[in-house]
Amino acid sequence: MNTNTASTSPTIAEIPSGTYAAALRRNEQIEQQLEKDPSVFRMLTGDRPTGALHIGHYFGTLRNRVRLQNAGVESWILVADLQVITDRDLVGDIRGSVTQLLTDYLAAGIDPEKSTIFAHSAIPELNQLVLPFLALVTQPELERNPTVKSELAAAGKSHMGGLLLTYPVHQAADILFCHGNLVPVGKDQLPHIEQTRVIARRFNERFAGGEKFFTEPDALLSKAPIILGLDGDKMSKSRGNTVMLSMTAKETEKQIKRAKTDSDRTITYDPDARPEVANLLTITSECTGRSPQEIADEIGDKGAGTLKVMCAEALNEHLAPLRARREELEQSPDYLLEVLRAGNEKARDQAVRTLDQVRDFMGMAY
Amino acid sequence: MNTNTASTSPTIAEIPSGTYAAALRRNEQIEQQLEKDPSVFRMLTGDRPTGALHIGHYFGTLRNRVRLQNAGVESWILVADLQVITDRDLVGDIRGSVTQLLTDYLAAGIDPEKSTIFAHSAIPELNQLVLPFLALVTQPELERNPTVKSELAAAGKSHMGGLLLTYPVHQAADILFCHGNLVPVGKDQLPHIEQTRVIARRFNERFAGGEKFFTEPDALLSKAPIILGLDGDKMSKSRGNTVMLSMTAKETEKQIKRAKTDSDRTITYDPDARPEVANLLTITSECTGRSPQEIADEIGDKGAGTLKVMCAEALNEHLAPLRARREELEQSPDYLLEVLRAGNEKARDQAVRTLDQVRDFMGMAY
Repeated sequence: MNTNTASTSPTIAEIPSGTYAAALRRNEQIEQQLEKDPSVFRMLTGDRPTGALHIGHYFGTLRNRVRLQNAGVESWILVADLQVITDRDLVGDIRGSVTQLLTDYLAAGIDPEKSTIFAHSAIPELNQLVLPFLALVTQPELERNPTVKSELAAAGKSHMGGLLLTYPVHQAADILFCHGNLVPVGKDQLPHIEQTRVIARRFNERFAGGEKFFTEPDALLSKAPIILGLDGDKMSKSRGNTVMLSMTAKETEKQIKRAKTDSDRTITYDPDARPEVANLLTITSECTGRSPQEIADEIGDKGAGTLKVMCAEALNEHLAPLRARREELEQSPDYLLEVLRAGNEKARDQAVRTLDQVRDFMGMAY
Repeated sequence: MNTNTASTSPTIAEIPSGTYAAALRRNEQIEQQLEKDPSVFRMLTGDRPTGALHIGHYFGTLRNRVRLQNAGVESWILVADLQVITDRDLVGDIRGSVTQLLTDYLAAGIDPEKSTIFAHSAIPELNQLVLPFLALVTQPELERNPTVKSELAAAGKSHMGGLLLTYPVHQAADILFCHGNLVPVGKDQLPHIEQTRVIARRFNERFAGGEKFFTEPDALLSKAPIILGLDGDKMSKSRGNTVMLSMTAKETEKQIKRAKTDSDRTITYDPDARPEVANLLTITSECTGRSPQEIADEIGDKGAGTLKVMCAEALNEHLAPLRARREELEQSPDYLLEVLRAGNEKARDQAVRTLDQVRDFMGMAY
């Protein structure tokens, strides 16, 4: 899941290395299984609706979701509206943000016939799962989650809110309500997936008599490169260093032209020494499928100006079909909400089924 | 609410004295208002279903609920089944416990035509309120709740579970979903009510633009005496020192006969020096309406044996109509579940309305 919007990666030292190593090993098996039979997977992904998406989101997560959806992985996409207030006081224009997010999803190729898009706030039976799940974790477990601690620091708040503290438990409910077994994440989200696995295991042991009612989901670690902002910093709308998916070709060209580079006319791919130049090469590579080195070699000593032109052209060509779909979608805002309502209905049917079974397991059927 | 089953009173030093003093002052106004016009109140009470009730529950809380219900206070009674696992791993025979509780309620005079009896696990829309409410409290606020700390100690657990830690937030949802404005509690529950008031206030400020959507509920402090166990210890089924409401007249007589007393033949009402004798006098007083002193004077030097006979007779006479209703109810277990289902339906209608409005306030209506 990509429900972060802030810069919240824990330091590498904080993620238990065993967890990461195990996830990496497991990932190879999963990729093989995806090749062989993608239909065994049920994928849960999602975003906090905090506004329109940019190419960092697109190349980082969204494109991969579309790929997996089209490969035949059953996909559930959560619009985590209730989670917007984990690290901020107000939700802002949440309806507008949700509409933006839906536009970006559908324009990028998420197909509502293949993927169930639904909003957190519309699925009470999913949210009720949070209560029994809370009983399966201890306060120390909640407190030592490194990702939650980083999010608190990133939000610049002195006190952890109760919703942020218990966030990994809500994420467990998000994944387990639909029996999701695959969750594409960045490395920083591994502690959350581990918490979900623990909750699934404990529920099965304590309430389901050892039956494997809930599956322990696997993390699918992202292999996508991280796209930096055009100033070399983290890409973020508030920093003005993004290319938003909603920009026109002309706006995109203008943004790329303003990108920070360096004074060396010879273009080389060296992410450590020349991060800004490497970033433009990475974007071009992502759009064309050619390697960043190859593109650098082709440009040679024609300088950053040439790189920028090439990058903007590649980006505009790659995003052209996405923009065409966006224009259509913007003509029919009602359609977007219909998609969400249909997804909500499907997710709710699933949540009702799961909660009924959970209540049965707990003996709470009267 | 009386959702504790363990010995969980915080020490007096832990309850902020300002809170208690304010609640006491406020209580006088409430009692006056109850005399004048009980219809302005909506009362929320409840119990964790952990088994049959005893006379400690009856004289401590249940009788007062019946009194308020019959005086015309709109009453909502929560069977807090999901809360059973706050301080224990398993729910046990929860269906059996719920049926027992319903039997005790109805036998004691709770009237399903006047009071809405409903189960926590059956109201997803109520439970969803926990999520936005969690965003309105901080981790330090959760951690310093003295009642939660005492419950942890009473449960003999080393680690606080997530459900117990967040329990005051769920209680806020229980009270606010039906816009309850009156919650009968013991002094130890005041911190929970205070937390609910804070959540109501913060929701109104942050999401309702200052509109008083949620009412800050008042605590109605119990004036009932505490009934001890027949050994002078806390009354508790596991200690075998109770008179259960389900006992027959003969069993009651036998239990009272076994009650611990002291060697002084002259009966006096002295709770500090002679707690066991005072307890039997209190029970007799509660049943007859006569003062404990008066009863003690009447017995004089006829000794504890006479006191026990008098106490058992008074109890059996007082409980006779309750036992008659109980016998009828035990003939029709289906009726009890029908009552619960009808209550669930009514509570759910209310919860759906409240959640819809909450989502509107938060802009999450799509």
